[in-house]
Amino acid sequence: MMRVTVLGGGSWGTTVATLAARRNDTVLWARDEDTAAEITRDHRNSKYLPGFDLPPGLRATSDLEEACHDTDVLVVGIPSKAFAQVCSDASEVVRPWIPVVSLTKGFEAGTSRRMTELAQEAFPGNPVAALTGPNIAREVIAGQAAAAVIAAADEAVASRLQQLFQSTRFRVYRNHDVIGSELGGALKNVIAIATGIGQGLGVGDNTRAMVMTRGLAELTRLGIAMGGEAATFGGLAGMGDLLATCLSPHSRNRTVGEQLGRGEPLDDVLGGMTQTVEGVRTAATVHTLARELSVPVPICDAIHSVLQGESSVADAYRGLTPAGHEGHVD
Amino acid sequence: MMRVTVLGGGSWGTTVATLAARRNDTVLWARDEDTAAEITRDHRNSKYLPGFDLPPGLRATSDLEEACHDTDVLVVGIPSKAFAQVCSDASEVVRPWIPVVSLTKGFEAGTSRRMTELAQEAFPGNPVAALTGPNIAREVIAGQAAAAVIAAADEAVASRLQQLFQSTRFRVYRNHDVIGSELGGALKNVIAIATGIGQGLGVGDNTRAMVMTRGLAELTRLGIAMGGEAATFGGLAGMGDLLATCLSPHSRNRTVGEQLGRGEPLDDVLGGMTQTVEGVRTAATVHTLARELSVPVPICDAIHSVLQGESSVADAYRGLTPAGHEGHVD
Repeated sequence: MMRVTVLGGGSWGTTVATLAARRNDTVLWARDEDTAAEITRDHRNSKYLPGFDLPPGLRATSDLEEACHDTDVLVVGIPSKAFAQVCSDASEVVRPWIPVVSLTKGFEAGTSRRMTELAQEAFPGNPVAALTGPNIAREVIAGQAAAAVIAAADEAVASRLQQLFQSTRFRVYRNHDVIGSELGGALKNVIAIATGIGQGLGVGDNTRAMVMTRGLAELTRLGIAMGGEAATFGGLAGMGDLLATCLSPHSRNRTVGEQLGRGEPLDDVLGGMTQTVEGVRTAATVHTLARELSVPVPICDAIHSVLQGESSVADAYRGLTPAGHEGHVD
Repeated sequence: MMRVTVLGGGSWGTTVATLAARRNDTVLWARDEDTAAEITRDHRNSKYLPGFDLPPGLRATSDLEEACHDTDVLVVGIPSKAFAQVCSDASEVVRPWIPVVSLTKGFEAGTSRRMTELAQEAFPGNPVAALTGPNIAREVIAGQAAAAVIAAADEAVASRLQQLFQSTRFRVYRNHDVIGSELGGALKNVIAIATGIGQGLGVGDNTRAMVMTRGLAELTRLGIAMGGEAATFGGLAGMGDLLATCLSPHSRNRTVGEQLGRGEPLDDVLGGMTQTVEGVRTAATVHTLARELSVPVPICDAIHSVLQGESSVADAYRGLTPAGHEGHVD
């Protein structure tokens, strides 16, 4: 039994707290006092996970020091925009040596840094890890079978964290490739927007399959150039997460794409979301990184162009089926 | 302008004949006289492509010699069960040197040989090729954007065939890896049955994504052991075809899986199909090949076991989420 703290009362943070609470003394930190009070009192998070009962043992608080000061494992499910600040605040009070696990799939705006890089900066002496993979929150909390990846450089840390989150319905696999695992989760959101746009435009399954396939090839190329390993992008943290996000009606990134594909204006679409849509920010980061690293990313570039208001969704989609040959013809 | 003959009046053979007929003198051979007569007279194939108009220039016949004797390109879209026999019959009448293109995604029962191997045996002096990829027939014939792969060892042959089938709505990419391209198309049908079973059982998108991801890893391992190249399985002929088949409501293999997942008996399910379901036969071939080559294929084995009546769909699915780690932990 460990003491586990999850920072972030969104749908995934709450779900991961629920997983941890099965065998651990778990506390959730939510910035919003009402959300924290509702979780502790009613065992509900009606804003982000309406209709689901949370475990009675799961407590929540909006007091960061109270949440963190004596925890054994710190799990951070804060949107990329606020991730570094919350880590910095928490670092004032947590104990040394404890592992810090990121749940967030995105980049720091401006710097293009990954979330575990931000965590490592805030907690220089602590091991960092990422929990990622094909995990639609409401399916996991409903107890449907799913698998995830715990990525950590240190095998012993990965093993302990694996046991912490693992259950018969939620299988956790280890991967030493932290960079690749984290990038798979972040980059796939841009391809999910592209797939959603296709659905909104009414393209067929052949075209959707083509965009997802060429999209994975694109993010694999970029991910390898950034230091990830090819095998990671073919696994649960890459292809698996991409597919779940592209298939699920509950994916925020895919939904944003679908609304854009149907012709709704970007501002209306984003204004209507209650949670952060990381892929919108990630598209700009990918555009910059790909240029710096000289990696061609035509699908991500097309999505960036749509999100910047520089091209229509129909024009962007027409450009996604280039002629030529598939790559490795002699 | 070339003379093109397509053998096989099923949905995909008819669709490919339609693509070829745009710029070539094209004839379709259908075993069934009524189908041939309807295509020539009414420009319809109401049995396999109900509701679609075929090009007026496309002729059909049930006379194999008439269809083949002066053709410049022979395209074979015959189910795996009859593929070798029809090739053998056609080889009596076709001219030398002409390329033979397989459309069929399966293996010869008993011998586990690929379709281009059968074609090469029947036409020892002719170049052989395979046209494959994410191609749901009714989307392609409806003019929705799609991409395919023409796989041939000889680059010049591949280029000519690429031009033959290519259009702005149907992009054709070349690949020299005939073995990998052909295996991707054949092996993915077993994973499509697995995905369909999951849908029939009502599993979530996380689980479907997991089965598709681990399924692609499985068929990639087996395909490499059989001589294919890893990159091919990550491209349109592997992942692309797998996704289109798993996504489309029109896939026969996925549909068979879905009916099994809902608890319908295998005999009823297969008896109700008007077209060949290659994946059912391929599951047995994969089971044999994987054992010979010592490649672990737990998903394909589980599907084979269901199709042999040896385990229930629920038991098979429970077995598809093994514990452990994802592969490349040191």
